[in-house]
Amino acid sequence: MKAVGLIAEYNPFHNGHLYHLQLAKKITHADAVVVVMSGDFTQRGEPTVLDKWQRTRMALANGADLVVELPLVHAVQPADRFAKGALVILHDLGVSDLVFGAEHPDWDFPQLVEAEKKFQQAAFQNYDQTYATQFNQQLEATTGHSLRDPNDILAFSYYKEVLQAGWSMCLHPIKRRGSDYHDLQITGQIASASAIRAALEAGKTEQAKSAVPSASWPCLQDLHDLPSVERLFPILRNHLIQAPVEELAQTYSMAEGLENRLKQAADQSLDFTTLMKKAKTKRYTYAHLLRLFLYLDLEASQKQVEWTMQHPYIRLLGFNKKGQAYLHQVKKKLSLPLITKVDQTLHHGLLDLDFRAGKLYQNFTKDEQDLKRAPIMDLSSKDR
Amino acid sequence: MKAVGLIAEYNPFHNGHLYHLQLAKKITHADAVVVVMSGDFTQRGEPTVLDKWQRTRMALANGADLVVELPLVHAVQPADRFAKGALVILHDLGVSDLVFGAEHPDWDFPQLVEAEKKFQQAAFQNYDQTYATQFNQQLEATTGHSLRDPNDILAFSYYKEVLQAGWSMCLHPIKRRGSDYHDLQITGQIASASAIRAALEAGKTEQAKSAVPSASWPCLQDLHDLPSVERLFPILRNHLIQAPVEELAQTYSMAEGLENRLKQAADQSLDFTTLMKKAKTKRYTYAHLLRLFLYLDLEASQKQVEWTMQHPYIRLLGFNKKGQAYLHQVKKKLSLPLITKVDQTLHHGLLDLDFRAGKLYQNFTKDEQDLKRAPIMDLSSKDR
Repeated sequence: MKAVGLIAEYNPFHNGHLYHLQLAKKITHADAVVVVMSGDFTQRGEPTVLDKWQRTRMALANGADLVVELPLVHAVQPADRFAKGALVILHDLGVSDLVFGAEHPDWDFPQLVEAEKKFQQAAFQNYDQTYATQFNQQLEATTGHSLRDPNDILAFSYYKEVLQAGWSMCLHPIKRRGSDYHDLQITGQIASASAIRAALEAGKTEQAKSAVPSASWPCLQDLHDLPSVERLFPILRNHLIQAPVEELAQTYSMAEGLENRLKQAADQSLDFTTLMKKAKTKRYTYAHLLRLFLYLDLEASQKQVEWTMQHPYIRLLGFNKKGQAYLHQVKKKLSLPLITKVDQTLHHGLLDLDFRAGKLYQNFTKDEQDLKRAPIMDLSSKDR
Repeated sequence: MKAVGLIAEYNPFHNGHLYHLQLAKKITHADAVVVVMSGDFTQRGEPTVLDKWQRTRMALANGADLVVELPLVHAVQPADRFAKGALVILHDLGVSDLVFGAEHPDWDFPQLVEAEKKFQQAAFQNYDQTYATQFNQQLEATTGHSLRDPNDILAFSYYKEVLQAGWSMCLHPIKRRGSDYHDLQITGQIASASAIRAALEAGKTEQAKSAVPSASWPCLQDLHDLPSVERLFPILRNHLIQAPVEELAQTYSMAEGLENRLKQAADQSLDFTTLMKKAKTKRYTYAHLLRLFLYLDLEASQKQVEWTMQHPYIRLLGFNKKGQAYLHQVKKKLSLPLITKVDQTLHHGLLDLDFRAGKLYQNFTKDEQDLKRAPIMDLSSKDR
């Protein structure tokens, strides 16, 4: 059996994802679709609208055969680390192809990767600009392109990782269909996940419904008061205020001195927007701060996150018959631990941070996210 | 000028407090009433229904002349430490008399204090019973009395402290008027603070109104969704889950090994009541756990709380003309620092924990609790 890999958040699963999934099967002639999906928090550090189990169910209902979790320490990361974390898993699972969206699928990504090797690191010392801005200045000077769109950035990262690792995985960038990632309006059947979330939040049910496959709708229709970083604000603010500044400084991805700025900002902020405004400088992107906030909510130290990053694993979230057969085929060749159920040992060990993230996510759901949860087995599903 | 001291929470100020205050002036012939009052959290570690400024205003409107804050590290304590913290302040402020309620004002408290000196400490090793239970077994065996009622326990503590310190302060235990402390029904004009809070919570406005002086009512009438430990549960639970167990163990008043029990309880609890049930054992009283929960919310270490306890100060919350005159009279003799306004230095120094408690209390109010807040000056008020 041949498998194509997809890297996704499915927040929530929409018509664009369905199109992408079907196209991936078509162009690769794969027998099985393996998805590595973020857990309860997105790459930007925000809670997903539905938990990982509901999103796994959606993915299986819409054509995925095997869904595994991208551990939090890889999922909530800038593009390069996100890509690496996901690809290590897909490579271990033996997928031959990777299909992913890009704003400019026609670009010569390997050439861009090559160009980056010659960048002068000394040029990244301007603390008034984000790393991305300085990176793009150099890239544009040497190649004429610049990586400004989120999926182009991810595409670049996938190429870079696969080329560096020397894997034979085939990479297929495809054009995203329909609206722009940043577009917050729903105009047709294809809309961005953010537009759909905005419609759900605003109670524009019919609009949201038109943009998702019918199999996604039952989970979404009763959503109100969506999970959000705003709702986690009391937790974030309190930790910033109460923890000693030396402890805050140990938080994963805390830049030197930023802990003082954040502590002061928290003292003076009564809502999330104010805190973000007071925290933001030219040096840090909004996404960087969102991710840092999540690591603060998790009281996650640099040391622990790095240890966890160095100990990857494959956490099964769900599969159908085809996914089961594929898993059976690759199982013996896996070099990473395959985790089907979380017990107390895993909770305090490898999966500690995922477990704690699931507990944080319980601010939005009563459902236990990890302990003793078995993978979803959609074994009745008909072949697609 | 002669001053009588009162130690209070005024949560909220009710007719029983008014009676107590007026009687205190009458029996001591004092010129001024000095109140040392808990800040935004009670002795049991619960947030007060109104913040310390509103409660100060109530106290001044009802006959108090000078109101100072009992710092959190003294206020949120078992009776003995609570008493000591409050008395150190009142003694420094030069009050000649202390008037306090007791369920049994006729008891010979000095004799009980004397009896305690002969207790065998070895008898307190039964970990299936609270300290209080074992204390009372010994007290009853030697004196025939047992300290079961909250105000008797405080009365005993006041006597013990004053006798140990060798101060000349006159102590006046008085009979509490009207309902029992534990009585949750409002039947007349005198009701317990808990009964009034329950009535407010239940929207029984008329009942609550009948039990408080008219000057208290304007602050109370619009209260709904009262501050509560339940509303702080997401913060408490998250810290118990996310913080390393070694860090939890450093929290002030955490008994050895309890951190593991609490961590596990938090993992399994989605509401405050469940957490409390899972945490509770025969060894710890409900109040002990409530206080510990507050210190957990504040991420307050043993080390910091002890340091703060050893550095007392007098924090002015409000005064009227008479209070101002009295303060003027005693000012030069004070041995403790007198704090009228909190700036950044105090925020990170002496008052750090009070400041952080005020920030925690901002989960219930938008009002800044400390930074740059000046004492309330009720200088227009007529003489009473």
